[in-house]
Amino acid sequence: MTTLRDRLYVVVFQSDTPAGRRFDKTLLLIILASLLVVIIDSVETVHSQYADLFAWIEWGFTFIFAVEYLLRLYCSPKPLRYAFSFYGLIDLLAIVPGILAIYYSDAQYLMIVRVVRMLRIFRVLKLSPYLKQANYLLAALRGSRQKIIVFLVSVSTLVTVFGTLMYVVEGPRNGFANIPTGIYWAIVTLTTVGYGDIVPITPIGQVLSAMVMITGYSIIAVPTGIFTAELANAMRGEGLQHECGVCHKRSHEQTASFCSQCGNALFKKAL
Amino acid sequence: MTTLRDRLYVVVFQSDTPAGRRFDKTLLLIILASLLVVIIDSVETVHSQYADLFAWIEWGFTFIFAVEYLLRLYCSPKPLRYAFSFYGLIDLLAIVPGILAIYYSDAQYLMIVRVVRMLRIFRVLKLSPYLKQANYLLAALRGSRQKIIVFLVSVSTLVTVFGTLMYVVEGPRNGFANIPTGIYWAIVTLTTVGYGDIVPITPIGQVLSAMVMITGYSIIAVPTGIFTAELANAMRGEGLQHECGVCHKRSHEQTASFCSQCGNALFKKAL
Amino acid sequence: MTTLRDRLYVVVFQSDTPAGRRFDKTLLLIILASLLVVIIDSVETVHSQYADLFAWIEWGFTFIFAVEYLLRLYCSPKPLRYAFSFYGLIDLLAIVPGILAIYYSDAQYLMIVRVVRMLRIFRVLKLSPYLKQANYLLAALRGSRQKIIVFLVSVSTLVTVFGTLMYVVEGPRNGFANIPTGIYWAIVTLTTVGYGDIVPITPIGQVLSAMVMITGYSIIAVPTGIFTAELANAMRGEGLQHECGVCHKRSHEQTASFCSQCGNALFKKAL
Amino acid sequence: MTTLRDRLYVVVFQSDTPAGRRFDKTLLLIILASLLVVIIDSVETVHSQYADLFAWIEWGFTFIFAVEYLLRLYCSPKPLRYAFSFYGLIDLLAIVPGILAIYYSDAQYLMIVRVVRMLRIFRVLKLSPYLKQANYLLAALRGSRQKIIVFLVSVSTLVTVFGTLMYVVEGPRNGFANIPTGIYWAIVTLTTVGYGDIVPITPIGQVLSAMVMITGYSIIAVPTGIFTAELANAMRGEGLQHECGVCHKRSHEQTASFCSQCGNALFKKAL
Repeated sequence: MTTLRDRLYVVVFQSDTPAGRRFDKTLLLIILASLLVVIIDSVETVHSQYADLFAWIEWGFTFIFAVEYLLRLYCSPKPLRYAFSFYGLIDLLAIVPGILAIYYSDAQYLMIVRVVRMLRIFRVLKLSPYLKQANYLLAALRGSRQKIIVFLVSVSTLVTVFGTLMYVVEGPRNGFANIPTGIYWAIVTLTTVGYGDIVPITPIGQVLSAMVMITGYSIIAVPTGIFTAELANAMRGEGLQHECGVCHKRSHEQTASFCSQCGNALFKKAL
Repeated sequence: MTTLRDRLYVVVFQSDTPAGRRFDKTLLLIILASLLVVIIDSVETVHSQYADLFAWIEWGFTFIFAVEYLLRLYCSPKPLRYAFSFYGLIDLLAIVPGILAIYYSDAQYLMIVRVVRMLRIFRVLKLSPYLKQANYLLAALRGSRQKIIVFLVSVSTLVTVFGTLMYVVEGPRNGFANIPTGIYWAIVTLTTVGYGDIVPITPIGQVLSAMVMITGYSIIAVPTGIFTAELANAMRGEGLQHECGVCHKRSHEQTASFCSQCGNALFKKAL
Repeated sequence: MTTLRDRLYVVVFQSDTPAGRRFDKTLLLIILASLLVVIIDSVETVHSQYADLFAWIEWGFTFIFAVEYLLRLYCSPKPLRYAFSFYGLIDLLAIVPGILAIYYSDAQYLMIVRVVRMLRIFRVLKLSPYLKQANYLLAALRGSRQKIIVFLVSVSTLVTVFGTLMYVVEGPRNGFANIPTGIYWAIVTLTTVGYGDIVPITPIGQVLSAMVMITGYSIIAVPTGIFTAELANAMRGEGLQHECGVCHKRSHEQTASFCSQCGNALFKKAL
Repeated sequence: MTTLRDRLYVVVFQSDTPAGRRFDKTLLLIILASLLVVIIDSVETVHSQYADLFAWIEWGFTFIFAVEYLLRLYCSPKPLRYAFSFYGLIDLLAIVPGILAIYYSDAQYLMIVRVVRMLRIFRVLKLSPYLKQANYLLAALRGSRQKIIVFLVSVSTLVTVFGTLMYVVEGPRNGFANIPTGIYWAIVTLTTVGYGDIVPITPIGQVLSAMVMITGYSIIAVPTGIFTAELANAMRGEGLQHECGVCHKRSHEQTASFCSQCGNALFKKAL
């Protein structure tokens, strides 16, 4: 016999049953709608005209999320553990700004933390092939973590050196107000963003920045190469799993026909 | 015995015969020319001087396309089916703006939908090796669709969070007029386009945007890596897809009778 | 017995002997120096002060190149054939601007055609491993030619459509003076250059340009993927060259141990 | 019996012992702190208020580095050799600017050379897996050196030709003051940085720059492709390099005794 609480638990916390998935999907749509309202409300012309309407709508969303939070507390087998879990805190954070906004109108933008709740999207997609694809990407990222740290340390050093050099060469007169500004410029240039808010004026500065640009243009190859090689690895898999009949060596090169340890043919010819 | 209608059908609708290919090529050139005229006519100095001339030329093109459309209707075995097919609607759309332009001069720019007719280019190239190459690219894109959706969802989340953060940090005073503008800025920065129409002024804003830039610079590796790995797969996977019963090697040479890894006969029946 | 002309021919036209290589290297340095002089002379402050000096130096270079050209004509076994060959015309073009510059001072910048003469650099490097590397790159480019044409046609279509759309949406009021300007903007944006000389002002324009940016950011993966896959192919080579003892099939998969046509073991086991 | 000097040598120069690693880590933190102080001191508002404080802190760092330098000289077995080694000179350079800064306040920014001392970070990480990853990257860079030189020569030629063309087409009137400025513009455009400080105004200039952009957008594929292919090679090539006498397969598993392709014994002696 299932009580109301048990049935609620299945709907609210699990996403394996049709009802649970429907609940999660509805929740996702509501979160998306609440984000959209925050975004639209930030437009001055809209805000000045419909301020009251938007305030009511946001109150509505805060109310819905509060009800959902209380429901989760009620039907969870271990309410305290939920309350202090990652998702529990996020769910709480989705309500707080709506209440704070009564006193501080700026607090309203904290509502954007609700975007973190969008992480639930991965629960809805749990059983879909998307997860496998995301796993490939994560495996590739994990495999290239150390290489990427080496890369980021090198980039940081480059950016510091060039930022300082440009500060010394160009000086505050040409917009390079201090070394942090120089570093900001170096990042803008190295990543090929190139706002143009700070640009070199002196010939030496232009030569230096040409060097930064060509460096940035070339070393984009490094993260790309790292990631591509790792992703190809992750997609190719681990090698051939086939136990050698003689020496029992279990994993071989992908294309092995003979065991590399004992020379025995791995596959008895059918003829 | 072939009637005029049958012969017209071969020329107008098919591209396997010399006459059909010549017709399609001529049509392509006329479409290109009509696009060029629209483009040139948009230049103010040209338009003010040769407005009448261009109006006549555009009338000419509209007339040619109308004749072509009527011809297609006439010689098609199933005129109604053609009229409501994708190409039929596109062909109609190529005529309408020219007629609308008499009443609304702005409608003239709708003529650019004629660029869609350029898709016929693939019919002319049908028998060429280009199609095979386009297929490789499409296969790679199709294979990486799910990974790319995961990637785009992550990018959208990033852009929303950073756009809102910058709106809160920099505010309308520094050009970040509202959250949509902040998101627009985040896209401009993350994709390393960097117009420079909206730039961070405060130190915190500059630190935040440096983070966006480095993120954008690094994650370009992700679509590149995905696509490269899939394309390499698509180019390798030209061969025979048949799993070997003994060693489970999956792809073989197109003409293989025996597995190149274990020597097993691939098709038992043949023995 | 070698005449002076024969010995000159070896020095001037060939790069296999030490003397020939020394001649080619010296020539390269002189070409580089002449280019540097043109570049430096274009700086207003330098030109106004040392105009006479630079005029003399450029005369000197023109004289040297003229002497070299006459030497080549003299010692070439077939002077006319040389004169009308690609290199012969380039060599002539290196002299002409210097002489034209007496009458038209603008002709001086034609001297930059001398940069084409730098192609001789590949003759000097002929015997070095650089050529092999350049061949890999060229093979990869040649292999991906068709894919790149498909890619460029798609990009051109995209750029035309978006350029026209932006012209209609933003209009001359916001800097999109005509369709060619719109196309120019679309190229600037799609390639992530992003000058910022023309930027979208209206919300619809900003949404459209965000789409162009994300497209541009994503499809950079396409040429990269194409080139990487082709380069990996070119570096891996053509497959295993080993004639099967039974059916005489000559080329096999890179990792084949058995002939895929007759199932015979390709390599007789040594034991 | 170990003297004080011997024990100091182990701590100061070696990083295999716990004490040595602790010393190196502390030193790294001090170097980082000294860099941070230089960077922060360059901010005008901070400098004007805390000039004295920062001067004292910088004196402190200079004192610490001087003590460290003297310690190294004292405990090194061959002091002169250390003094003229790469690291010895760098260590000296870390002290000099602090002393020079008494007379020339600009010399203070020379302190940024201390960033070079950060190279010691690789000594601290010596025993970690980071080095292996850095080696992969370096191997890939070394392997692609020649290809990259071919690439950079091509890019330099492109940039020179387009820079000159733009100078001739646009002229000083539109910001292209001289050929070096034109080349600077070409680099800014080709690398897709796109500051927007110098932009083409004339239609011909815009067409030319569109060509530069599309070239830059496409050829970024080249370094990426080169690096990816080499990195994949470097990561794959971990195995045994020994050509099989029968099938000429070149790389095998690290522990292979028999070729996995033909089953031949790799080392004849063992039979």
